[in-house]
Amino acid sequence: MYRLLNASVEEIANNNDSFEVTHLGEQTVDSPLGEVAYADEKERISLFSDVRKISSLIKAGVEPPAFVPAGPRQKLYHDPAWTRVGIVTCGGICPGLNDVIKALVNTLWCNYGVRTIFGIPYGFRGLNPKFGYEPIMLTPEIVDSIHETGGSILGSSRGQQPEDIMVRALERHNINVLITIGGDGTQRCAHDIVKEVNRRNLRISVVGVPKTIDNDLNFMERTFGYETAIYHAAPAIGCAHNEAKGARNGIGLVRLMGRDSGFIAASATLANSVVNFCLVPEVKFEMEGEHGLLAALERRLLAKGKHHAVVVVAEGAGQDLLEGEAGKDASGNQLHKDIGLYLKDRFTQYLAARNIDHTVKYFDPSYMIRSVPAQGTDAVFCLHLAQNAIHVAMAGMTDVVVGDWHNHFVAVPIPLAVRDRRKINPRDQLWQSVLMVTRQEEYFHPKAE
Amino acid sequence: MYRLLNASVEEIANNNDSFEVTHLGEQTVDSPLGEVAYADEKERISLFSDVRKISSLIKAGVEPPAFVPAGPRQKLYHDPAWTRVGIVTCGGICPGLNDVIKALVNTLWCNYGVRTIFGIPYGFRGLNPKFGYEPIMLTPEIVDSIHETGGSILGSSRGQQPEDIMVRALERHNINVLITIGGDGTQRCAHDIVKEVNRRNLRISVVGVPKTIDNDLNFMERTFGYETAIYHAAPAIGCAHNEAKGARNGIGLVRLMGRDSGFIAASATLANSVVNFCLVPEVKFEMEGEHGLLAALERRLLAKGKHHAVVVVAEGAGQDLLEGEAGKDASGNQLHKDIGLYLKDRFTQYLAARNIDHTVKYFDPSYMIRSVPAQGTDAVFCLHLAQNAIHVAMAGMTDVVVGDWHNHFVAVPIPLAVRDRRKINPRDQLWQSVLMVTRQEEYFHPKAE
Amino acid sequence: MYRLLNASVEEIANNNDSFEVTHLGEQTVDSPLGEVAYADEKERISLFSDVRKISSLIKAGVEPPAFVPAGPRQKLYHDPAWTRVGIVTCGGICPGLNDVIKALVNTLWCNYGVRTIFGIPYGFRGLNPKFGYEPIMLTPEIVDSIHETGGSILGSSRGQQPEDIMVRALERHNINVLITIGGDGTQRCAHDIVKEVNRRNLRISVVGVPKTIDNDLNFMERTFGYETAIYHAAPAIGCAHNEAKGARNGIGLVRLMGRDSGFIAASATLANSVVNFCLVPEVKFEMEGEHGLLAALERRLLAKGKHHAVVVVAEGAGQDLLEGEAGKDASGNQLHKDIGLYLKDRFTQYLAARNIDHTVKYFDPSYMIRSVPAQGTDAVFCLHLAQNAIHVAMAGMTDVVVGDWHNHFVAVPIPLAVRDRRKINPRDQLWQSVLMVTRQEEYFHPKAE
Amino acid sequence: MYRLLNASVEEIANNNDSFEVTHLGEQTVDSPLGEVAYADEKERISLFSDVRKISSLIKAGVEPPAFVPAGPRQKLYHDPAWTRVGIVTCGGICPGLNDVIKALVNTLWCNYGVRTIFGIPYGFRGLNPKFGYEPIMLTPEIVDSIHETGGSILGSSRGQQPEDIMVRALERHNINVLITIGGDGTQRCAHDIVKEVNRRNLRISVVGVPKTIDNDLNFMERTFGYETAIYHAAPAIGCAHNEAKGARNGIGLVRLMGRDSGFIAASATLANSVVNFCLVPEVKFEMEGEHGLLAALERRLLAKGKHHAVVVVAEGAGQDLLEGEAGKDASGNQLHKDIGLYLKDRFTQYLAARNIDHTVKYFDPSYMIRSVPAQGTDAVFCLHLAQNAIHVAMAGMTDVVVGDWHNHFVAVPIPLAVRDRRKINPRDQLWQSVLMVTRQEEYFHPKAE
Repeated sequence: MYRLLNASVEEIANNNDSFEVTHLGEQTVDSPLGEVAYADEKERISLFSDVRKISSLIKAGVEPPAFVPAGPRQKLYHDPAWTRVGIVTCGGICPGLNDVIKALVNTLWCNYGVRTIFGIPYGFRGLNPKFGYEPIMLTPEIVDSIHETGGSILGSSRGQQPEDIMVRALERHNINVLITIGGDGTQRCAHDIVKEVNRRNLRISVVGVPKTIDNDLNFMERTFGYETAIYHAAPAIGCAHNEAKGARNGIGLVRLMGRDSGFIAASATLANSVVNFCLVPEVKFEMEGEHGLLAALERRLLAKGKHHAVVVVAEGAGQDLLEGEAGKDASGNQLHKDIGLYLKDRFTQYLAARNIDHTVKYFDPSYMIRSVPAQGTDAVFCLHLAQNAIHVAMAGMTDVVVGDWHNHFVAVPIPLAVRDRRKINPRDQLWQSVLMVTRQEEYFHPKAE
Repeated sequence: MYRLLNASVEEIANNNDSFEVTHLGEQTVDSPLGEVAYADEKERISLFSDVRKISSLIKAGVEPPAFVPAGPRQKLYHDPAWTRVGIVTCGGICPGLNDVIKALVNTLWCNYGVRTIFGIPYGFRGLNPKFGYEPIMLTPEIVDSIHETGGSILGSSRGQQPEDIMVRALERHNINVLITIGGDGTQRCAHDIVKEVNRRNLRISVVGVPKTIDNDLNFMERTFGYETAIYHAAPAIGCAHNEAKGARNGIGLVRLMGRDSGFIAASATLANSVVNFCLVPEVKFEMEGEHGLLAALERRLLAKGKHHAVVVVAEGAGQDLLEGEAGKDASGNQLHKDIGLYLKDRFTQYLAARNIDHTVKYFDPSYMIRSVPAQGTDAVFCLHLAQNAIHVAMAGMTDVVVGDWHNHFVAVPIPLAVRDRRKINPRDQLWQSVLMVTRQEEYFHPKAE
Repeated sequence: MYRLLNASVEEIANNNDSFEVTHLGEQTVDSPLGEVAYADEKERISLFSDVRKISSLIKAGVEPPAFVPAGPRQKLYHDPAWTRVGIVTCGGICPGLNDVIKALVNTLWCNYGVRTIFGIPYGFRGLNPKFGYEPIMLTPEIVDSIHETGGSILGSSRGQQPEDIMVRALERHNINVLITIGGDGTQRCAHDIVKEVNRRNLRISVVGVPKTIDNDLNFMERTFGYETAIYHAAPAIGCAHNEAKGARNGIGLVRLMGRDSGFIAASATLANSVVNFCLVPEVKFEMEGEHGLLAALERRLLAKGKHHAVVVVAEGAGQDLLEGEAGKDASGNQLHKDIGLYLKDRFTQYLAARNIDHTVKYFDPSYMIRSVPAQGTDAVFCLHLAQNAIHVAMAGMTDVVVGDWHNHFVAVPIPLAVRDRRKINPRDQLWQSVLMVTRQEEYFHPKAE
Repeated sequence: MYRLLNASVEEIANNNDSFEVTHLGEQTVDSPLGEVAYADEKERISLFSDVRKISSLIKAGVEPPAFVPAGPRQKLYHDPAWTRVGIVTCGGICPGLNDVIKALVNTLWCNYGVRTIFGIPYGFRGLNPKFGYEPIMLTPEIVDSIHETGGSILGSSRGQQPEDIMVRALERHNINVLITIGGDGTQRCAHDIVKEVNRRNLRISVVGVPKTIDNDLNFMERTFGYETAIYHAAPAIGCAHNEAKGARNGIGLVRLMGRDSGFIAASATLANSVVNFCLVPEVKFEMEGEHGLLAALERRLLAKGKHHAVVVVAEGAGQDLLEGEAGKDASGNQLHKDIGLYLKDRFTQYLAARNIDHTVKYFDPSYMIRSVPAQGTDAVFCLHLAQNAIHVAMAGMTDVVVGDWHNHFVAVPIPLAVRDRRKINPRDQLWQSVLMVTRQEEYFHPKAE
């Protein structure tokens, strides 16, 4: 959507990262797909788009970093007639999970003719016999209208299970394709499964569909659910604006998703231009002092004709302001103190101490945003992503996630995909637009008069 | 929407309540409205609808209780050319406030030809000079598209101001019609203003537009914003369902408005039939023991094929479970402990103590429901209500609110309107339908097997 | 929603209409409903609400006209254990059909314990063996989520089938309760079925659920689907406004439902105050001449700063302008020439002849309005209506429809319900509000300057 | 969104197309933007993404085709203090027009400090004095909330005006930046303006913002409004499905936009998987015969358990079936006969001739789709596109449109942008997915049994 200039991409050429993917073995089975446009196995999707940069690498004898394309292959590794697939959804729910599940099942069943598709219940726990959960046998009939509902029909859970136990379960059920739908924690766990599979010398394709509503995975220009999330953040922000204007010095405070990256907060701010302050993890701010948020908020409230403010804060913003340690969740993600509630309290204290009559209305719409079904082009994206996960898996690739780079679907090795998180570059168009739309700098750093 | 059988209505005939309204004086000015259907001043809208009951009262020589109809009058008390109107919105925001304001202004300006309409800012504070708020002069141009936005363009505040100060402000601005848009606290304050007006022997019509999103005002079969609120509760409940199903023993807990009456919680439950437990102030429940909520919830979660639950709770439900006293807000409303957070904690403790792995997702969508604009027939209702408030005020009535009884707009004396709150009768259709839709009794009181 | 002053209601007291309902026989079976609030069999819901009018009738020895209340009875005629029910949906689709079907099935199954419920496919054709359609056996599981989708899971068709054939089918299947969901044509057909049932001396309750999205049934203050229809008319009107403003002298022309009554067009106009002309069947207008629509439209377009217009027309408006005869549909409804396309052509001709550059964008959203699912309080209304249809049927009433009068559910004899159509009274609040909101009279009859 | 493999892109390397853009002169003015990430003037965004292809061109001594990046420049050609800008919207309306206008104005005013911004009314006509339309002076206040409404606040019109007259108007108003928002006809006209500007030796930047809801412009992977259009096509398709199921052999027929390219029809089909037949311009189909649409439709209707069908047709599909010539519109676009109405008639004739009882409900939601406001990420895209149009114009580029290639904003010479239309490649992922979702081939070419 916007230009990526973050360091990790720029520095990659100096890096020894491998962009090539692991194959289980020779592709000897004819694809049943018929007259479709097969991927050219020799094509490589350039990481860089600047032709001068690519050119200088080539002239220096360096192979420019480039992704293996996804897409259907003319020859498969897995024979569809013998293929048994497991699908698992992990971590928090996200718009589009059921679209992805439906498209995985339909592509396997209708295009490849695979007839044994296990839905693994409640995340990786579904692969640990100690929980005793029954798998769901998935068919096109069962998934026919699941895309109309948010959440995941398979259920989900956080956290990893011991990889030897999980691989034993895959072995016992003769599963030779495992599709892991989840965030970076999930894909790290998928990588551990690959290692255990290799240790046991098995032939199981493990292919990830990256799920992060925050849109913060590296080497992914887009992740499913993000577009729908931005749409559904709008009502909360509009309501916060109405509440704020409904009282003298009313403050509408909206906490949005974004643990490490503020893409949702920033884009939602741009899509709803009533926001006065947008706070993200990538841009530090002070609370106290002349250029702190509290003074800026006070200036905004007392500005002529204003008397209200809308503040959008990503959940991972301002973590340095919250002392102490909040621990990790079951997936190993760093837990954060609640910056929303912290701001709510600080605003109230500060304004009360100055005898400024005010109200703060607090909005935490995250669960209402992530549990809706995917819509429109986001749903189409889910469909295409799932198709490519199956193409890649049937070709025998493993230890990869499918992604979208320069509008091409590509196969990204898991270690590469999970290495870093994508972040906003504050000098770039996205954040500069936020500054233009909010004009928040005029309150943080007012001009002397 | 549903039959009212609550005691207060039934007992009214034994009561000495007056249904007649106060007039400022003789109506001598011709209405400028032209060929419209004027109200018949002699008509009285029967409180009761049972013709046998009305008949027995008449035969016993008792005048059946009946409301004065609202609607336009052929003769007015206030001369439009000299009329100066003040409009004030008080208390929390509610869908339709701007529709009401717009229709008040348009009716005054376009139909009656009134040209001086003050918008009083931030509730009753706008009538207290110590706050120094400037009134807004309202015209059809200013209100042209305000109905597209939630909240109130006038702003609001809670609580009363000293009535002598407020009436002095009305006097100083030569306001002879005051329209008070607010809940029962607001209308009680309006009644105090009437008393002060009388003390000073002034001629000011004070007419209320009742505002309670909870739909809990007596002698009002409907209040504005309620219909829109029910529509906007649906997404929260749907999302809670998706979150609940997304985890093993997932619980989606939704707190809705309803301090003393559970109409919103009950109707929202009926309109979204995924709710498993609906808790309202009118129906007591236990937490502990064999027939308590905790055991019922556990039975639901462990029932074959279920493993999830959706709980809707009105904010005023189960207050007896919360010891201690929570005080009153600035409008004098009894503040409640937060039953939603209480339930969330108790669910977690109880299930954890039983080693039942679970998740609770908590939804508090109240601010997102009350701050949307009114839609469709609810917007039409706002329009008609505002028109009738003006008809009634221009005729010189005072100390009344406009209401809707048996699909007729009526003028209800304020003391009558604020005497009691309307409540759900548990034996009646609304609650019985909730029991049918949720089947919650099967979990509270399971049949022995 | 608004006051009804149409003649047919006022004249009823002079009439010999019977408001009493037909019973199949003595009610001897105990209701299984338990401790609910049973209807008082002696209660009668007054047609009139004016207590002075009721009083004068009583004093004159005339029984005031009054409806039998619906609601559950303590004693039933039909024994639930032996009851076999047929449900049929007829005519065009309407929001809420599936809500009604679902609530009928749930009330029968869960509350009364009835276990044999036939869904009759594709309207009355489903009762004619010559079409060979299979009935659907309905259970709570089958109807569990049908309310989330518009249309009717039973399908529908227009027109009547021979009543002897239909009654033979009911007899053959041992159906003793038939619920007919449909408009006045459908209920007239239901009445014919009752006559045939009587001729054969059978004991079958025939109970109608009135369906008219136009909200034009007499003695019904509200019909299901209407509220949802008003909500869904809004986007079309908003889009017409945007298209109109997008071109010099742009005209957005929206045709809405309303064959004989303009309730939808008028209410949609009030709910979306961008409409400049609202045309309904009840208010005649000319096309030509100084006070005709064409001249009025021209005045609007050429008014300073306007250059666009939004016109809403009910499908039955201006039928006198369309010569010739358009015939009747399969249900016997008078078919109308298309006033929308007629206006579109005439606008273009007229303005072109005057060299006024313009565009007309035509919107016909009827199918998009009627095929959505019912929402919010409209869905709750469907539920309550269906419950009452079952209560009334199980009590052994027949030849009735269930309706809503003064916010009470009542049983209305079919002959009474279908006698007239409800219409807008132009002098009343609804139409007067339309004139205020559109200000169309200023263009039809401009003041001399 | 999906991979592009259409010939025009592949053949470009053999072509002599220039990707370089025209500059008015040396950039000597310092940008006022401050510390933003300026575009690297030497960067070139590769047309191709396959690194092996780029590499082989380089090794063969051929410069790989590549776009000039958009984005802010450190040095400008136009001095903001003297810059006067004209903005014009042409052709049909499209979601996001007002977002683009708002962002153009805000970027000019707030970032660059430009104070003279003319809104040119009603398309290119606004530049022809014979129409006498007044320009609108645009400021941030005026555009503050225009993005909440669909359409264009400037109005629009179709067709070109004489370029000498238009350039004379630009000259007279001292406009040195002209932003043309419109489709390929509009941009061709902009190119003619450039030629006339050159002839007169003026210094005016003409920069286009490409507008095509059909998403069919070449070298543009995305155009604004498309995403929103796909969202808003969903309700029409859902309603068509409900209508279709509501009658025996019901057919819901939906005509969508897409004169030459079926992107909207195909994506809407994928996003709403209830479609049984999707017809686009790029894929020919027969009406008659064993493999014609009529026989396929009949097979679908008569298939066991189906009895309904949903058909989506792009407006430009099947044009070979409509004999005769339909002419061109005022913008020079080939007008098409109405394939939707043609199909409706042919379906009815064919099925009636076979005595198959059926109904066809026809939906034409185009005006309701294109007149909504842009939402969410589509609105963000409008913002970024407009910012880049201003960056490019202020740098002194001319005869270009801004586009999006591989997620970079680029400047595309107008002649290149308008040369061809982008089309669906039937062997590619998009169309193959349509075939998977609809399974229409099973009806067109059923397998022998």
